[in-house]
Amino acid sequence: MVNQFRWIALYPGGMSERVDGRKLRYMHRRGEVLRAATEHALDQGLDDLTLRKVAQAVGVSHATLVHHFDSKERLVAEIVELVLAETLSVPDLPQDHPDPLREIWRRATEESGRRHVKLFVAITGQAVFGDPMLAKAVASSMEQRTSLIAEGLVQYGCPRSRARVVATSLLGGMRGLFVDLIITGEQERVGAAFEDMISELEGRIAGWGG
Amino acid sequence: MVNQFRWIALYPGGMSERVDGRKLRYMHRRGEVLRAATEHALDQGLDDLTLRKVAQAVGVSHATLVHHFDSKERLVAEIVELVLAETLSVPDLPQDHPDPLREIWRRATEESGRRHVKLFVAITGQAVFGDPMLAKAVASSMEQRTSLIAEGLVQYGCPRSRARVVATSLLGGMRGLFVDLIITGEQERVGAAFEDMISELEGRIAGWGG
Repeated sequence: MVNQFRWIALYPGGMSERVDGRKLRYMHRRGEVLRAATEHALDQGLDDLTLRKVAQAVGVSHATLVHHFDSKERLVAEIVELVLAETLSVPDLPQDHPDPLREIWRRATEESGRRHVKLFVAITGQAVFGDPMLAKAVASSMEQRTSLIAEGLVQYGCPRSRARVVATSLLGGMRGLFVDLIITGEQERVGAAFEDMISELEGRIAGWGG
Repeated sequence: MVNQFRWIALYPGGMSERVDGRKLRYMHRRGEVLRAATEHALDQGLDDLTLRKVAQAVGVSHATLVHHFDSKERLVAEIVELVLAETLSVPDLPQDHPDPLREIWRRATEESGRRHVKLFVAITGQAVFGDPMLAKAVASSMEQRTSLIAEGLVQYGCPRSRARVVATSLLGGMRGLFVDLIITGEQERVGAAFEDMISELEGRIAGWGG
């Protein structure tokens, strides 16, 4: 899935400039450090994140972090961009998967997916009173998911004029249930509620003749 | 609605001790200051809250705030408790209201209700990686809403064995749509999704013979 919204362009120089071997190695190493820093944020959240803590957790020097990311704000911005792109994203899900929403739910509630959803919930909470650019990035991420699900619903026979509204309701339901699950930890009740939501949807799909 | 979970007891001395006139005035004044501090938090969020900023916004001295609340942590805890108790709470909603969920949605999306929901989303985001007591307070607030809606569903004919699951799904849907509305501001799409959710519920209620 392409994250169309570039909160902060990853490579301000642009990809069109001449890329030599040294730059390629630099970019490669930069990506590795960002990945490791993101794993740290997935464990700890972003609230108490400092460059020193990240450097220690990732196993690089403070100077290396500053070299790659300039500032904590920029590092956080890139972590957020990565997490928004990855949460609920299942790029390897085949177009003709027989049961895509249950598969998305299954992955999102597994250990790795749940870490992403947790940080997504924390980022969303920060976006409410935070930097308007953060809210814009979260909104863009929501918009992408809504469009994807709307497209899927049309394939199941949902009238195109209704698809975005039903997708909004469906994604809203999943989002709300994720929050419940993360806060209460009550897998059984929340899982049953998801199953209830999907059964209702299956009833509608039958009605659409899909 | 009674907030059964007392995150920090408001009056550690307890209400059973002898209360004289001076103490009553003190408690009255304390409540007023807490209300004003909560209004400040509803506008600004909790992230950058300091006793000095609150004192300035509320129009009391820093010493008065410390006198009433001891510390920023304690003031924030009491603001959180108040906001959790008030969000989506409509104590004046008559038991026999013909359309309670649309009424709750209407109030929650109005200016005053939306301020509460906004801070609730921010608090939920903080709870994910924050103090476990905060997550417990949010979980307790969710649990109360789920029970209330489950009780309402039973009155509409929902089998008691299904009521908590359907209530979880319904409340999850509303929670997720609130987040969408606050982040994207797209009242029309999100309002239509809520209407879609409620129409589906009405179909189920008809099926229950309620």
